[in-house]
Amino acid sequence: MAGGGEGAFIGAIHRAAAALDGDWQLAAGAFSSDAARNARSGEALGLDAARVYPTFDAMLAAERALPADARIDAVAIVTPNHLHMPMSVAALGAGFHVMCEKPMALDLAEAEAIAAAAAASGRQFALAFTYSGYPLVEEARARVARGDFGAIRLVQVEYSQGWLSRPIDRDGNRQAEWRTDPARAGLGGCLGDIGTHAFHLAEHVSGLRVESLCADLTTHVAGRQLDDDVSMLLRFAGGARGVLKATQVAAGDENGLKLRVHGESGGLEWSQMEPNTLALRWLDRPAELVRAAGPGLADTTAHRLRTPSGHPEGYIEAFANLYRAFAARIRAGEGTPEPALGAADWTPGVADGLRTMHFVERTIASAASESKWTAV
Amino acid sequence: MAGGGEGAFIGAIHRAAAALDGDWQLAAGAFSSDAARNARSGEALGLDAARVYPTFDAMLAAERALPADARIDAVAIVTPNHLHMPMSVAALGAGFHVMCEKPMALDLAEAEAIAAAAAASGRQFALAFTYSGYPLVEEARARVARGDFGAIRLVQVEYSQGWLSRPIDRDGNRQAEWRTDPARAGLGGCLGDIGTHAFHLAEHVSGLRVESLCADLTTHVAGRQLDDDVSMLLRFAGGARGVLKATQVAAGDENGLKLRVHGESGGLEWSQMEPNTLALRWLDRPAELVRAAGPGLADTTAHRLRTPSGHPEGYIEAFANLYRAFAARIRAGEGTPEPALGAADWTPGVADGLRTMHFVERTIASAASESKWTAV
Amino acid sequence: MAGGGEGAFIGAIHRAAAALDGDWQLAAGAFSSDAARNARSGEALGLDAARVYPTFDAMLAAERALPADARIDAVAIVTPNHLHMPMSVAALGAGFHVMCEKPMALDLAEAEAIAAAAAASGRQFALAFTYSGYPLVEEARARVARGDFGAIRLVQVEYSQGWLSRPIDRDGNRQAEWRTDPARAGLGGCLGDIGTHAFHLAEHVSGLRVESLCADLTTHVAGRQLDDDVSMLLRFAGGARGVLKATQVAAGDENGLKLRVHGESGGLEWSQMEPNTLALRWLDRPAELVRAAGPGLADTTAHRLRTPSGHPEGYIEAFANLYRAFAARIRAGEGTPEPALGAADWTPGVADGLRTMHFVERTIASAASESKWTAV
Amino acid sequence: MAGGGEGAFIGAIHRAAAALDGDWQLAAGAFSSDAARNARSGEALGLDAARVYPTFDAMLAAERALPADARIDAVAIVTPNHLHMPMSVAALGAGFHVMCEKPMALDLAEAEAIAAAAAASGRQFALAFTYSGYPLVEEARARVARGDFGAIRLVQVEYSQGWLSRPIDRDGNRQAEWRTDPARAGLGGCLGDIGTHAFHLAEHVSGLRVESLCADLTTHVAGRQLDDDVSMLLRFAGGARGVLKATQVAAGDENGLKLRVHGESGGLEWSQMEPNTLALRWLDRPAELVRAAGPGLADTTAHRLRTPSGHPEGYIEAFANLYRAFAARIRAGEGTPEPALGAADWTPGVADGLRTMHFVERTIASAASESKWTAV
Repeated sequence: MAGGGEGAFIGAIHRAAAALDGDWQLAAGAFSSDAARNARSGEALGLDAARVYPTFDAMLAAERALPADARIDAVAIVTPNHLHMPMSVAALGAGFHVMCEKPMALDLAEAEAIAAAAAASGRQFALAFTYSGYPLVEEARARVARGDFGAIRLVQVEYSQGWLSRPIDRDGNRQAEWRTDPARAGLGGCLGDIGTHAFHLAEHVSGLRVESLCADLTTHVAGRQLDDDVSMLLRFAGGARGVLKATQVAAGDENGLKLRVHGESGGLEWSQMEPNTLALRWLDRPAELVRAAGPGLADTTAHRLRTPSGHPEGYIEAFANLYRAFAARIRAGEGTPEPALGAADWTPGVADGLRTMHFVERTIASAASESKWTAV
Repeated sequence: MAGGGEGAFIGAIHRAAAALDGDWQLAAGAFSSDAARNARSGEALGLDAARVYPTFDAMLAAERALPADARIDAVAIVTPNHLHMPMSVAALGAGFHVMCEKPMALDLAEAEAIAAAAAASGRQFALAFTYSGYPLVEEARARVARGDFGAIRLVQVEYSQGWLSRPIDRDGNRQAEWRTDPARAGLGGCLGDIGTHAFHLAEHVSGLRVESLCADLTTHVAGRQLDDDVSMLLRFAGGARGVLKATQVAAGDENGLKLRVHGESGGLEWSQMEPNTLALRWLDRPAELVRAAGPGLADTTAHRLRTPSGHPEGYIEAFANLYRAFAARIRAGEGTPEPALGAADWTPGVADGLRTMHFVERTIASAASESKWTAV
Repeated sequence: MAGGGEGAFIGAIHRAAAALDGDWQLAAGAFSSDAARNARSGEALGLDAARVYPTFDAMLAAERALPADARIDAVAIVTPNHLHMPMSVAALGAGFHVMCEKPMALDLAEAEAIAAAAAASGRQFALAFTYSGYPLVEEARARVARGDFGAIRLVQVEYSQGWLSRPIDRDGNRQAEWRTDPARAGLGGCLGDIGTHAFHLAEHVSGLRVESLCADLTTHVAGRQLDDDVSMLLRFAGGARGVLKATQVAAGDENGLKLRVHGESGGLEWSQMEPNTLALRWLDRPAELVRAAGPGLADTTAHRLRTPSGHPEGYIEAFANLYRAFAARIRAGEGTPEPALGAADWTPGVADGLRTMHFVERTIASAASESKWTAV
Repeated sequence: MAGGGEGAFIGAIHRAAAALDGDWQLAAGAFSSDAARNARSGEALGLDAARVYPTFDAMLAAERALPADARIDAVAIVTPNHLHMPMSVAALGAGFHVMCEKPMALDLAEAEAIAAAAAASGRQFALAFTYSGYPLVEEARARVARGDFGAIRLVQVEYSQGWLSRPIDRDGNRQAEWRTDPARAGLGGCLGDIGTHAFHLAEHVSGLRVESLCADLTTHVAGRQLDDDVSMLLRFAGGARGVLKATQVAAGDENGLKLRVHGESGGLEWSQMEPNTLALRWLDRPAELVRAAGPGLADTTAHRLRTPSGHPEGYIEAFANLYRAFAARIRAGEGTPEPALGAADWTPGVADGLRTMHFVERTIASAASESKWTAV
């Protein structure tokens, strides 16, 4: 694991998610550039001190030197964004599979460098678009794909947080600090951090591609260098219309990712904060509540579930679905055909990363433009 | 009453709302241009046949000729939009107060004609922006106005219906028919019918004015002449950002009007379909659910309530609040100062009508423009 | 109207409910035994001072002396419980129809006296079991009756209020005062006031009769003379089992009347505080949300609705359904056969009143008994 | 691990819960008395074949013979109920700590045998009353304990499932089969399986002890030998009143465990199917929604959380809180004082097991009795 030492948030989640199904074991790490912090983190995690490395490069070199059955199989990169590219490229080059946090990189060019490295290496590159790991997101995707709602007309996605409502990035909050720093976060602030999740979810579930967008990026908190609020209109290929709203200054909101998709005969609504219910509404009959592990699920949904109905699964379990699939892909071996969407071992990866970094760049362009529509 | 005969929808609601508090009694009507239908409607409502008039003009002339204490006080205009202006102008000119359905008119010029007539007549002109009559909408407005959330940053409003998902306007549905006919509906389809409600609610509660907007109007159902789907980005004076979504093709949705407003320290959410709860979320403390007739309400909210807490009030009661206030203003007499927002006898009226018709015109202009922002 | 003067709660609701559909007009009243209060109440309601009577008996005598087309048709009795019997008997005897608040009387013997008077008079006697007027309660009843869920096994009903959590009955709250006084409230406190509603709803919707019960009555607030909290187990004919919980000391609860019924293949849940949704859950398919004015309703539900889907109706509208049906029964005339459950002009009446007063007496007996089961 | 082989439900949950925080590693097992199934289960879990034992006794003997740092530390007993006692006693006697599924045993005498073995061994015995591991159950408990609601008056708990609505126990469903077989399940059916959870939660959160109860046990599905439906009235020491409802024939219900507790000034509601919200209602101020990882939590709640607010945690995480605490207690070593309720390393254990088995026996007695109240 790269990053994710004491006080970090997402590293602990990765570890729990990887551990859940017994497919992964944490064996080595370079948790922090601060040597003491690095050592403490490794110790707290019960690692062999010899495998708690001072730098990422040291880890790659040392692990590579170990016998094949003793070395790590993959690297989880849970650092701030600016390290995603160099670390991913190095790890892939050194023959390790990579599970990388989103956004993929600082910009599209970096993402393309990762894509090239992945292609050259023959290694797996998975990207933590965690929300696509939720069972009922898969159910939603499968139902749209099989035409339950007819042709899709409307896609509305929102991701509403409030934790950056105050200038905590200047008051020592480390999570906030790097996320609002262009050098470490990249082109987008809120846009890169959660706007990419929203965009990914919208295209993933609707099965449609955004053709053009019209964006308004705002920085509400004085002195902040990157956007903390994103609004945009979307036009999809085929005529569907959409709205994407992502914000980190909706004071009091927690992690409100919500998706609605409507077709000719009905629509669906899914909300991350109550992830075990998928609401279906119909023009001609009563609304239905599809429940995790309840009746009526697609097979591709069912194999993403661990508990019987009414025993809620959450964020870590969604994440674990990515780690389990990632392990399955690695076990399948090089040369195995790319798994289809919905397949047990599908994970978001290079294509999703390139698409979302392209989205970030086109959104920045749109926000700076006087023209209404910017092609994507 | 003008319009609202057999088979109409909103006329019956007006009658119920007006009757609820005992302030109004239906005394005369011109319900339909079809004589038999008109007569049947009057009889069903228990009216004296002599006061069921063949035309609106006949009603005005005959009622005006009655002694002051025998004639009607006011006219409710519940016809399709194209009759709002001529009827309002005529009624005001004949000395009657007017309660008019929204949108105010076919376009801004017509709205201005009504405004002029109202000013010249000294009569009251109330406009049925019914949703502003809900007690917890008043609570929301009052809390924003007194600064509970700090400076407002985000305003999100949506109005989601699905009943026009199919071309029922060509299959004999009268409600759909005139609403999709430019000659009777005016410049906007969904925009005029419900987009105006959404816009009115957003400005009414936030207390902010939209300075510019960027709109996408779509007609999803082939052959329909007016928009059935509206999306737009909003920029408010003072820097707040907004999104407005109104649609009549969200298949399966009912009457989903929902407003969210966020300021520096918290935000509110109100949903018309569960109107007796106002959710408040805070940066630093647990969310609160403010309930109709529960503890903690503003005085201006309390006097819009009729039942003790837990006994739900609904749409008719919200509407009745407008009728009650309308009666109170009339009783107050000519020359009484304009009631403040929140006052017991405040109603939406000329200013709200002009503002929303202006909004309709600017939205049409934006939708036709290649430029991103159109001033409002 | 008898009772319901200034400061009363339910009188104003009766007036609004009666006015809503235009079937009724308030023409006379004896609102209070306090002459000044009585006069003020009548004036505030716009009544002719001559028809604001000092006593109920004076009202009956004077109205009876008026020509048939000038006198009142019916009397609404909205007084404390101890007056229900004498007033109902007198009104029926004087030839007036009666709409009476629940519970029917102080005890079963009184209820039987009303029943006898109603039978002798040929007049209508309707009882304000208001919750049976909700459209989706009718939907629930109709679905159970037509066997949607198979044989019924479980009936769970609860009515949870908190307003009597403190001794406000000793602090001048008039509503609390008479409801906790055995002389005016009758045998039961919470039991009579809301336990009867819960019991009525349970039998009305399930279509089953309670055969035996086991009750625990408690007075939590020191010094109170009647129960403020009711719990009981129910056994229904045919083997279904039930639980009834009614309380007025669930601090913070508003008016939480909730019913659940389960059969062999599914179940339903309805909650009065969100009355426009009926949840159906199924063993073999996803849950459904049946919505007021949405698709899939029984005809008997549809004619209890006034607004299109998504425009919420509430408590007053439910009440108005009783008043509308009461008017229809009166218009139908003496000798008309008793309307069936679900029929447009069905109202709760004598049979419901006798049954619920019997329930009150059997509950009191059970609470005082050491035996587990008391026959009903 | 004892039990929990292929096709079992709760074994997999235990493994995930134990793995989540990295405190435990599955090292050995006796998963099934069917040798092939046992072997396949062990292999699927990646165990060394030498530590996949044919019987529980073989496992204890072999592991005990290993060096201290190579043997297992604890045994998870996830078998049907009839094996809990012999396996627990044997494991404790052999010096292993035990995490045992609930109910503790077939009857109270067996539970007492475990208690004696635990006391004699000095080993930890933890019991999987999983729901007490939810963070917001701890929050509820802590708030009641510190007096937020004043003296408690009402405790209502329900646990509603529907999966046994049909005779699936006779159609090859293994989960259903043993749970409805007195020889393997014990005295109670639904009562032992989920009634014990409900009772434990009610006493755990309210901090009160049930003094007497009045129970109705029913078997709705013909031919079933144990109860599938439980209703009872509760009287708590100090005067609080309660209702407990547990059922496995509420067709369509999933795993509806819900608790409400009301005191003099307010109350709380928690529902296992949406476990990240705790609703607080107050007599004098608006209701609050306390959220997992949101503001206002007790310290004892906070250390049971793994994700930031709005990232839902679920059933496995609640279970993992027990496993984490169990590990902490073991690390603390013999002789460490019993951790207080709320402490990081508190787990349900012997006392909870004895209490709930006593409850089962008293409920059976009550159900068979003609007397209303049975002392607990």
